[in-house]
Amino acid sequence: MTIADRWLLPDGMDEVLPPQATRMEALRRALLDLYHRFGYDLVLPPPVEFLDSLLTGTGTELDLQTFKLTDQMTGRMMGASADVTPQVARMDAHSLHREGPVRLCYCANVLRTKADKHQGGRSPVQVGAELFGHAGLEADHEILHLALTSLEQAGAGELHLALGHIGIYRALIAEAGMNDEHERELFAAIERKQYSALDALIDRVVGDKVVAGMLKALPHLHGDDEILAQARTAFAGAPAAVASALDQLTALSCAVRERHPQVTLYFDLAELRGYEYHTGMVFAAYVPGYGQALAKGGRYDDTGRAFGRARPATGFSMDLKQLASLAVQAPACDGIWAPALNDSALRECVDQLRAAGERVIEALPGQTTGADAHRCNRELVNGDGGWQVVTLDA
Amino acid sequence: MTIADRWLLPDGMDEVLPPQATRMEALRRALLDLYHRFGYDLVLPPPVEFLDSLLTGTGTELDLQTFKLTDQMTGRMMGASADVTPQVARMDAHSLHREGPVRLCYCANVLRTKADKHQGGRSPVQVGAELFGHAGLEADHEILHLALTSLEQAGAGELHLALGHIGIYRALIAEAGMNDEHERELFAAIERKQYSALDALIDRVVGDKVVAGMLKALPHLHGDDEILAQARTAFAGAPAAVASALDQLTALSCAVRERHPQVTLYFDLAELRGYEYHTGMVFAAYVPGYGQALAKGGRYDDTGRAFGRARPATGFSMDLKQLASLAVQAPACDGIWAPALNDSALRECVDQLRAAGERVIEALPGQTTGADAHRCNRELVNGDGGWQVVTLDA
Repeated sequence: MTIADRWLLPDGMDEVLPPQATRMEALRRALLDLYHRFGYDLVLPPPVEFLDSLLTGTGTELDLQTFKLTDQMTGRMMGASADVTPQVARMDAHSLHREGPVRLCYCANVLRTKADKHQGGRSPVQVGAELFGHAGLEADHEILHLALTSLEQAGAGELHLALGHIGIYRALIAEAGMNDEHERELFAAIERKQYSALDALIDRVVGDKVVAGMLKALPHLHGDDEILAQARTAFAGAPAAVASALDQLTALSCAVRERHPQVTLYFDLAELRGYEYHTGMVFAAYVPGYGQALAKGGRYDDTGRAFGRARPATGFSMDLKQLASLAVQAPACDGIWAPALNDSALRECVDQLRAAGERVIEALPGQTTGADAHRCNRELVNGDGGWQVVTLDA
Repeated sequence: MTIADRWLLPDGMDEVLPPQATRMEALRRALLDLYHRFGYDLVLPPPVEFLDSLLTGTGTELDLQTFKLTDQMTGRMMGASADVTPQVARMDAHSLHREGPVRLCYCANVLRTKADKHQGGRSPVQVGAELFGHAGLEADHEILHLALTSLEQAGAGELHLALGHIGIYRALIAEAGMNDEHERELFAAIERKQYSALDALIDRVVGDKVVAGMLKALPHLHGDDEILAQARTAFAGAPAAVASALDQLTALSCAVRERHPQVTLYFDLAELRGYEYHTGMVFAAYVPGYGQALAKGGRYDDTGRAFGRARPATGFSMDLKQLASLAVQAPACDGIWAPALNDSALRECVDQLRAAGERVIEALPGQTTGADAHRCNRELVNGDGGWQVVTLDA
């Protein structure tokens, strides 16, 4: 193995160097402080869990994304966390076991076996907030507001919000009464936007012409405000759950417009991301010129069921690495350079400056690099009045 | 699998709940801010690397502690980081490739296959600082000062610092000229404090009576200040490197006494922890009643060699989880409870309070838990003059 080979990092398993790491830390603090002010308590999920716990009720996609490890202490299979959300739902349902609404937030490293096309690397830093124990729209609205505020805080400029509702597809599927195999085929065709295959499949397996028509209409219902009106017409004969979902989308979009008038709203009623666990409204936020969603979330009311305590839940998450890369600024040159001297007056001065929050870098004997190489804009100089901070020429 | 089984977490892979997670976050910020004020730049090492890179030059102990993963994208073996220090050394040597002294700090999750007896769990949060590119005592002193200041900041009360120097043992072993097998036997006997086996082994394999006597004396040289004087007598005929190591320990202990007079100093010349990579002074800091070291560090000048750029290095690390468990305080009750009302004046008031840094928790419609369950000591009440913050009875 050559020395050059030893430098290679696995694809998507990145190191973060200064100043980008400092930027991530600042954003981490700003976001966790924001969630604190909204009453969200910080939790740290375990980085590794037994596989049975980690993947219960989460679906095959997460299974494929999870690195498997053998526990040498028990011989059991463990998995590295690939998504914090189900872990936090378990912490709410079991570890905290509180009554009523519970607000939790987190910022944790996750690992993924492959870089999916909508995510950057295989080692995102997942940051987000979840609201458990309340099934009302007020909770969904708080989560949407918090997600948009997070992105604004991160310096994301023009924001686009795509809103959808898993309840519409669920209700139509139930009404159509198709078997599991046909349902999977239908789902795949919608996901891949294969409209002609989709129509053919629906004609073949859905007997009821009214339901068939509604299922065919669904994938085309994406766009601006007119979509909700079109949907009300297209789904006039649908089960009550569909009308209720449309009402929710109308109410949520009004609330978002009131508090975030600058956000561009977009509806996508065939957005089925997270279909395996989402149950209500789903959303994704984008900025122009950046293909991946910056924040993704929605309602997932059944997550706790496998653990004996189903709780309503709604929340969102983002990748801190991705977010921090949005606002790229050169770091400010801000520090004080101290000479390499064993002088007690100097040491006292350095201690005082640091206690006051200043960054003071002490030169080491023989050091050839100077103040500028260490981003110092000032230096300590011994003058008539003792040690003094002097500004350096830029 | 029963529901109860699904709750089990693997031994040592802990979740951290509120308020402990909040305490860890506060300490994390305090420590990273401290390192920033000393000029240490934050880096984030990759959580997973190719095994060849991760374990080059680090020894078998770390290999055993490292979880192995298959990279599905390349088929190559990867390892989850079990110790951040060698990763940071690689980042200094290769990724940054700066000249002169480089100061780096980190706070990162690591994973370990087994809970070693001196560490709590298998998922510590490793926090620490490393100073590269300077071989002088000034760098060692800065690191010692920073480690002790970190522990003081964490609220560790009475501190005990054990100082040693790997150079003494290295010089005596070289002088004795023993083969690798005998050296391993000797090392094991010292580590296990098997004094009679040790003496017998030395008599058997070390021909030079003077060197044999010095090697026999080494394991008994631990205690307070007198130890350095005793060592100077015992090692009078030793190679110059031994006298130099003792001079360093004297200078470092004086410097520590000057800046941290309340710390109890202790010397242990047979402390061989990290022998595989340490090259100079080594230290460990303890608090009474807590068996495990809270901070461990030392000089390790050869780490970068396997990567083509050997750099002097000295540093320390701690476990943030362990540190945060030291100062256990009940969290302050501090928050404002807002009623579940769709009122624009109320919303404006909530927004303003949050912008001013207050924690405001909005009740959700139908919520039965109240202000006290959510650690709120105040509430928003609508009076004659509009919405006002009113203190709740304790």
